[in-house]
Amino acid sequence: MRDVKIKKYLKKLDYTYVLGIYPTIEMLNVRPNSVIKVLFSTKAQRSQEVTKIKQICRKLDLKYEFNDKLIGKVAHRENTYVVGVLKKYEEKLKADLNHVVLYQPSDMGNMGTIIRTMHAFDLYDLAIIRPGADIFDPRVVRSSMGSLFRIRFSYYYSFNEYKKYYKNHNYYPFLLGAKKTLEEVKFEKPYSLIFGNEGEGLSSSFKDVENTVKIQQSATIDSLNLAISAGIAMYKASVEN
Amino acid sequence: MRDVKIKKYLKKLDYTYVLGIYPTIEMLNVRPNSVIKVLFSTKAQRSQEVTKIKQICRKLDLKYEFNDKLIGKVAHRENTYVVGVLKKYEEKLKADLNHVVLYQPSDMGNMGTIIRTMHAFDLYDLAIIRPGADIFDPRVVRSSMGSLFRIRFSYYYSFNEYKKYYKNHNYYPFLLGAKKTLEEVKFEKPYSLIFGNEGEGLSSSFKDVENTVKIQQSATIDSLNLAISAGIAMYKASVEN
Repeated sequence: MRDVKIKKYLKKLDYTYVLGIYPTIEMLNVRPNSVIKVLFSTKAQRSQEVTKIKQICRKLDLKYEFNDKLIGKVAHRENTYVVGVLKKYEEKLKADLNHVVLYQPSDMGNMGTIIRTMHAFDLYDLAIIRPGADIFDPRVVRSSMGSLFRIRFSYYYSFNEYKKYYKNHNYYPFLLGAKKTLEEVKFEKPYSLIFGNEGEGLSSSFKDVENTVKIQQSATIDSLNLAISAGIAMYKASVEN
Repeated sequence: MRDVKIKKYLKKLDYTYVLGIYPTIEMLNVRPNSVIKVLFSTKAQRSQEVTKIKQICRKLDLKYEFNDKLIGKVAHRENTYVVGVLKKYEEKLKADLNHVVLYQPSDMGNMGTIIRTMHAFDLYDLAIIRPGADIFDPRVVRSSMGSLFRIRFSYYYSFNEYKKYYKNHNYYPFLLGAKKTLEEVKFEKPYSLIFGNEGEGLSSSFKDVENTVKIQQSATIDSLNLAISAGIAMYKASVEN
């Protein structure tokens, strides 16, 4: 794997940074072929975790180095001792498996949390309808706790474009004004669980989709947090199937 | 209501700051008797929201002022145009209603999101086992989207202290190694849904509690995010009852 000049993260770079011990170990275990190198802080020189990560790197013939200056450049928090450098990739969704679809998601923390929840409920295919947050932003990777490496994902310019590729899927858009409650709905495989963004939810164009779903909630609340709604939906779909 | 000298938020202060338009309106509607005043940024002088908030203040005979300097002192983000100043309060939990119990929670964002989810599922009583994050920290208030004002909460020095007050409750600690899955368990009212903190979950002392519950998840994941686990549990308990 080629070397790279380490600079602050930018969306246009073709590599990203994986911050922290746990996500870096996930990266090494799950995506070894995309790893460029691992950086350590000299502050953690004697830690067990660093010893463990060094062993994995040697076994996989991957580079690592102690470099406080580079870590300082790319990490946001002072207590980051391990940084993975990873080449970006994209992987087509599987047509026969269930999907999660995020419509124009903007919050990085929510996106990472949703990816972590997908992994927990054995959902491994994520469609993102543009414009959407950059899935390789270090904040997404970090809040996914490295679960990002387990999933396949693809960006689409519109929901119609997504539908063209996955005609066989049953679409379940989550809307406050939906016809059925989550309790009433029966998810037919392969299904697509579709969620709007943090500010506006799903646009009214989804109201005509057959299987709209709502999570019943108190009349005095605006709405649930997006990652919570998605988590509840994924849980329900997973125990049902 | 007395006036206060506005300074950076500190846990020891007996008032807090409510950042943003939506949470401030919630504060005025739900806890008018605890409001000290409302601050506006001159940048938002002509906005509809400010006009609306001024009307509510006049109706309730509450003070407001335009003061960019004070807002700059207490807000973390540049685009904060409205800040509520609120006297802190504590309200005893209701013994006949269902509770959420957070055992030593440390993440402010998670705490706020859990409070917002409680409100969504009509759970209004929160017990916090010390040491726990400061529920009045502006970051908790903000991530609760003002739902904090709807709930009652109390801090306890130990789970045993909590139990002394609420002996009639049925305790459901959420643990990875629990006996029953969330699908199998039947929540008997009044129930207490008990969640451990972000790092360690619930300590082994909870293993002997009768009704431990687990949310089934992929073998390759460490655990769900705390707010997601709590959200799924609250959803399940609410649709069942």
